[in-house]
Amino acid sequence: MKRIEVTTKSRDQMIDVSNAVQNAVSQLGVTFGNVTVFTPHTTCAITINENVDPGVRKDFLSHLDRAVLWSSAAYQHRGGNAAAHIKSSLVGTSVSIIVDAGQIKLGVWQAIYLCEFDGPRTREIWIG
Amino acid sequence: MKRIEVTTKSRDQMIDVSNAVQNAVSQLGVTFGNVTVFTPHTTCAITINENVDPGVRKDFLSHLDRAVLWSSAAYQHRGGNAAAHIKSSLVGTSVSIIVDAGQIKLGVWQAIYLCEFDGPRTREIWIG
Amino acid sequence: MKRIEVTTKSRDQMIDVSNAVQNAVSQLGVTFGNVTVFTPHTTCAITINENVDPGVRKDFLSHLDRAVLWSSAAYQHRGGNAAAHIKSSLVGTSVSIIVDAGQIKLGVWQAIYLCEFDGPRTREIWIG
Repeated sequence: MKRIEVTTKSRDQMIDVSNAVQNAVSQLGVTFGNVTVFTPHTTCAITINENVDPGVRKDFLSHLDRAVLWSSAAYQHRGGNAAAHIKSSLVGTSVSIIVDAGQIKLGVWQAIYLCEFDGPRTREIWIG
Repeated sequence: MKRIEVTTKSRDQMIDVSNAVQNAVSQLGVTFGNVTVFTPHTTCAITINENVDPGVRKDFLSHLDRAVLWSSAAYQHRGGNAAAHIKSSLVGTSVSIIVDAGQIKLGVWQAIYLCEFDGPRTREIWIG
Repeated sequence: MKRIEVTTKSRDQMIDVSNAVQNAVSQLGVTFGNVTVFTPHTTCAITINENVDPGVRKDFLSHLDRAVLWSSAAYQHRGGNAAAHIKSSLVGTSVSIIVDAGQIKLGVWQAIYLCEFDGPRTREIWIG
């Protein structure tokens, strides 16, 4: 298992970690099969989406923010980040990636993103 | 592959299955790599979230219940549990977990949860 | 890694790819462990749900369409398919499936679906 660290700069942010994941897979020596890209936190997530237009990331974060209000009298969790916990389980804390001949296999337009929902923070991603 | 059984007690519930998953991984003899934690049903799901404050689980189930109404004249499915099928695909029927030196790797605050959306029932979880 | 091609016929559609995934797993020669079923596109997704009543698929696609409006002045992405990108990350671009004695392990009522959110198109699915 390899660990990556990512530092986020705002409450909601998507950071491309594709190159860091490829480096981790190379260091692990995985040549064929699949790897899990996993974040050990409960207020962020991992997803895959388009790697070109930053508007795609803005639209996704904005959608989540409209669907899961940051403040609500209905929230039971007292940490102030109830919405971030909800978003984390909606998006998911991991993705699975196929590895072929040592290379992670992504579509031409795809990148792997850490989704920050309660930043800024330093986050870990585990690959294994 | 190993099977776990979980009995749920209400329509919507999240049950911590982390210890049972660890036991299954130990029995399988997996020491390195990753495992899939999978539920073979279509009205429940598997997720990872915080293992301390029960408010986090209540907030997640409440969010899903507001976002996906239990009753709607628009539903085509006649089983009475259309909402549970929708929630199942929104959350997902599996998670992938890294295994290192025989241990499932979770963050300090993380647990693996079976999410029941159409209980009470007895549910299976498969690990492999 | 094996590739499957699927041709979709409408903007939103769910297509059962379970048999094609089983064939790919057989060709790969995977006998035990798990495989990743992954789509390399950013406006479709992979999910698992009920394989009997087509109403279940209609309800899921309708829910997503109500939750993520196709047209919105708020969207930043100019491709006209901002909603499809959002749905892709909400549902996820892959599922993990356990393989036991060469067989993909699904529940009796489960099928693996490609979810088209910006069709009609020809889509790839990768198994590895």
